[in-house]
Amino acid sequence: MTPILTVFERSPDQGRGLARDMRVRWALEEVGQAYDTRQVSFAEMKEPEHRARQPFGQIPSWEEDGLTLFESGAIVLHIAERGPGLLPAESGARARAISWMFAALNTIEPPIVEREVACYLEGDRPWCAERLALIDARIRRRLGELAARLGDADCLDGAFTVGDLMMVTVLRRLEGSGMLADFPTLDRYIARATARPAYLRAFDAQLAVYSRSEVGG
Amino acid sequence: MTPILTVFERSPDQGRGLARDMRVRWALEEVGQAYDTRQVSFAEMKEPEHRARQPFGQIPSWEEDGLTLFESGAIVLHIAERGPGLLPAESGARARAISWMFAALNTIEPPIVEREVACYLEGDRPWCAERLALIDARIRRRLGELAARLGDADCLDGAFTVGDLMMVTVLRRLEGSGMLADFPTLDRYIARATARPAYLRAFDAQLAVYSRSEVGG
Repeated sequence: MTPILTVFERSPDQGRGLARDMRVRWALEEVGQAYDTRQVSFAEMKEPEHRARQPFGQIPSWEEDGLTLFESGAIVLHIAERGPGLLPAESGARARAISWMFAALNTIEPPIVEREVACYLEGDRPWCAERLALIDARIRRRLGELAARLGDADCLDGAFTVGDLMMVTVLRRLEGSGMLADFPTLDRYIARATARPAYLRAFDAQLAVYSRSEVGG
Repeated sequence: MTPILTVFERSPDQGRGLARDMRVRWALEEVGQAYDTRQVSFAEMKEPEHRARQPFGQIPSWEEDGLTLFESGAIVLHIAERGPGLLPAESGARARAISWMFAALNTIEPPIVEREVACYLEGDRPWCAERLALIDARIRRRLGELAARLGDADCLDGAFTVGDLMMVTVLRRLEGSGMLADFPTLDRYIARATARPAYLRAFDAQLAVYSRSEVGG
């Protein structure tokens, strides 16, 4: 059975590759693993059939022979553990790569998501501008710390790993905020990673879903 | 060399076990791994010496022979992979346990942290009460989904795993909010896990640091 990745039928980002299936697609392209997709509508995501796969009614979910997984971090780690090239063979370097995955998802991403929530859920509230300034300060502090650690290196810890893959997908959520321009180190880091052939194949694959649904809709 | 866990010299929670070293201590007690601690002050956490271990100037960090790790999720996973009892041997069950770790850290914890930020960083802003209501609604939706998945089961997926350990430490951050009382399923889930001898040993160990530093200060 070819594994199945559940993705948005219509991505809220209109194919900019910011939905969380992009991380999984990229990892799959890096390791050379074929997959099928199942597109779910916003209504279907909240139905029991999808919640059996993803308890929080989100995407992505992952199904392979007898195994269903959810959470993009867990799916990407699972793929990286089974395919070549995303996790170092040496156990210490492997553990450090996984540290960067968790840093991306638990330290860098939360204030970035909060910025998005502030814009779409609280955008019409009188406090929005003042709050955005507070959130942006939190994000900038983290970006500064990340840029300081990265320095002149190509990747966060030696060669490209699943930690870089996850970090880059998280940082890309700031595209359009103007914030990345103040951190040229990170801007170049993102540019190097998103020039990888595997990234480009994954990006095209997610965009194709959106383009098709536009034609069909 | 006995591994070293870096912890707060003085915990902001005054020993309630809500700091992120508690997760690591609990995992260490579950697998029976001895460790030493290094206490860092808030000033020391921002110094280059600590940032070499933890790029974002936070706790915990972890050092064992030739390896330094950060991010509580990564450290706990590393410990669970090397010791017995926290990760199932069967590969599918192992991957599902890791899904729950990521769910705890990337789906459940972020709005809970945001609630804390709203209280301590924005507590004096005129919008605070109205924002808290919005955040609480986001948290309650996730708690409802989690309770629905857990149902009458003792654990999230079969026997107790690192996924339950991480989820319980995240949910405990809501103690004092009054929110858990509305989800008796989750309240009982937390009570079962925190009655485990390994949890109690870890809790006492983190409390002892705070008690000592009170005496010494």
